[in-house]
Amino acid sequence: MAQPRDVAVIVGSLRKGSFSRMAARSLIALAPPALTPEIVEIRDLSLYDQDAEEAPPAPWILFRERIRRADAVLFVTAEYNRSVPGVLKNAIDVGSRPYGKSAWEHKPGAVVSVSPGATGGFGANHHLRQSLVFLDVPCMQQPEMYIGVAHKLFDKDGTLTSDPTRELFQKFMQAYAGWVEAHVPR
Amino acid sequence: MAQPRDVAVIVGSLRKGSFSRMAARSLIALAPPALTPEIVEIRDLSLYDQDAEEAPPAPWILFRERIRRADAVLFVTAEYNRSVPGVLKNAIDVGSRPYGKSAWEHKPGAVVSVSPGATGGFGANHHLRQSLVFLDVPCMQQPEMYIGVAHKLFDKDGTLTSDPTRELFQKFMQAYAGWVEAHVPR
Amino acid sequence: MAQPRDVAVIVGSLRKGSFSRMAARSLIALAPPALTPEIVEIRDLSLYDQDAEEAPPAPWILFRERIRRADAVLFVTAEYNRSVPGVLKNAIDVGSRPYGKSAWEHKPGAVVSVSPGATGGFGANHHLRQSLVFLDVPCMQQPEMYIGVAHKLFDKDGTLTSDPTRELFQKFMQAYAGWVEAHVPR
Amino acid sequence: MAQPRDVAVIVGSLRKGSFSRMAARSLIALAPPALTPEIVEIRDLSLYDQDAEEAPPAPWILFRERIRRADAVLFVTAEYNRSVPGVLKNAIDVGSRPYGKSAWEHKPGAVVSVSPGATGGFGANHHLRQSLVFLDVPCMQQPEMYIGVAHKLFDKDGTLTSDPTRELFQKFMQAYAGWVEAHVPR
Repeated sequence: MAQPRDVAVIVGSLRKGSFSRMAARSLIALAPPALTPEIVEIRDLSLYDQDAEEAPPAPWILFRERIRRADAVLFVTAEYNRSVPGVLKNAIDVGSRPYGKSAWEHKPGAVVSVSPGATGGFGANHHLRQSLVFLDVPCMQQPEMYIGVAHKLFDKDGTLTSDPTRELFQKFMQAYAGWVEAHVPR
Repeated sequence: MAQPRDVAVIVGSLRKGSFSRMAARSLIALAPPALTPEIVEIRDLSLYDQDAEEAPPAPWILFRERIRRADAVLFVTAEYNRSVPGVLKNAIDVGSRPYGKSAWEHKPGAVVSVSPGATGGFGANHHLRQSLVFLDVPCMQQPEMYIGVAHKLFDKDGTLTSDPTRELFQKFMQAYAGWVEAHVPR
Repeated sequence: MAQPRDVAVIVGSLRKGSFSRMAARSLIALAPPALTPEIVEIRDLSLYDQDAEEAPPAPWILFRERIRRADAVLFVTAEYNRSVPGVLKNAIDVGSRPYGKSAWEHKPGAVVSVSPGATGGFGANHHLRQSLVFLDVPCMQQPEMYIGVAHKLFDKDGTLTSDPTRELFQKFMQAYAGWVEAHVPR
Repeated sequence: MAQPRDVAVIVGSLRKGSFSRMAARSLIALAPPALTPEIVEIRDLSLYDQDAEEAPPAPWILFRERIRRADAVLFVTAEYNRSVPGVLKNAIDVGSRPYGKSAWEHKPGAVVSVSPGATGGFGANHHLRQSLVFLDVPCMQQPEMYIGVAHKLFDKDGTLTSDPTRELFQKFMQAYAGWVEAHVPR
């Protein structure tokens, strides 16, 4: 049997009560044994400035190392202003540099977008996918995951209470486990 | 004669030698008298976290006030990973909140993307425009500005040395002045 | 009082029972007196082939003339495969040629996307907007219109039965009338 | 040794002197023995209309069968109005229906965009990729192919005369052969 794969889960929102974080936790809890997903925090990454590469801030170095160590990357993100939240895009930018040393390269990826609105973060979802083309992250196509009306899916403690969403999440993580296993660099 | 319009120019890259900054300076220098454009810095804006709205950081407050005061907004941006740099998206997110109090609303806008590559930041340009739909920033459509091969357009001091680009910039700022005048809220 | 504006309404789906067509009819019925919107059919436009410009098919000529005559253009579209239906994109391409003689130029535009799914045709909506940048169609930003779960909004005869959607449509057409009046070339 | 893979090559432009067609022919000529690519014509596909599914036009049936038979799909496309040409999008729509019977599903795909402009069809390239997410076509991320200034790369007979582009095409087809072999359903 294959060794469990280390999945770096990136949450695209910083606030404590974030629905993206709730969704990420649920997805982690529902992952099959083939995956060992873990949230990698992005709060301490200062805004990317190429001039800082001469002496990179410690959080940049740690983040890059953590992503490099991962077998795969799973993005669970809010939508801000019809696109990827700046906080998540900044983490992607930090992880992609310095030039020629991107930490993301070849990590099998997947995208889940989460929003209280009906459109389920569609804008963030596909803008993120465009970046993953450049980063050479082979990205799972189906099932797509646009989690809308997110405020009605969790209870006060952030526990998923919607049965259809739980089933969807399980199916998604199952499919993702297959995608990861097929794309992990050997 | 109309009063000159105050244009907040946002540069989507932090490094000192940024081609976006060089382009922004050139555009400012070539603006017609009807516009008084000025770079508004975004370096000090910490990553957006909704929980911080209870006591917003001073740079957020100052930035929002500066944008609110502006008659118009001009984005001059690099492309990072085929999309809007995180640092610029974060500024947009900060300026758009708290909910219902966006500083961007109804400011006539325009987008210039700048890149050393051939595709001239197309990905950043149009992802940014998608956010401007949500922010209700009426955005000038033509002339589009994808400034490619940017490292060959400026000298060491950041002065624009390309005559065709200068002409393009002049034409662009002229058109933008018309767009601003037609869309400034009265 | 201003003369009513002639609005060409383009429906992005050909089937008889199309929800986009139902939405278009409702929007037309709810338009304020300042607008006289009319569906312009696109079914007879053969696939765009530049070689045919030497002797353009009659439907191309008629379509281009009809769009040129219009004061404004309103797109009401389905989403096919997360983007603009080929049938609508073909009409846009036909109307945009021959080079330098686009029929769309400077017509004030707006976009409504309609879908039985939850995401309301978000993908079609914004892909279409990207084309409108190139076509120099000044496009209304707000209110955005992503009409999801469309199969529950109309009765068998295609009459709008949802009160909140009717209100939304009314508000939208009111805003669009203002946008048209402000942007009609004079 | 593996059997050569049958690749359906779809060209996103109908005119005889199309640069996309020239590029497609060059890519085919430079393919490694592991691939046997062939252009599949889309000219005869009438505009998609769901009502026609009761008695689908012969070209629709033939096209769907041809795509189903293929091991993989390669899109070589022009950009019309900053997006996918209607003629190509229509072929994608035809191949994707009727619901639940898409011919595209699971075919390993890749995208090449071609344009006389500098931006190399970036808009068409990424809009097409968004559709491929929905169609569950696993799409090669790198190398990206934005072929700009295309009118300077071929001679009168459509033969590729640019050595750097030939090298790029060779590398691309080599990488695509690997992508196809890794993703062909077994």
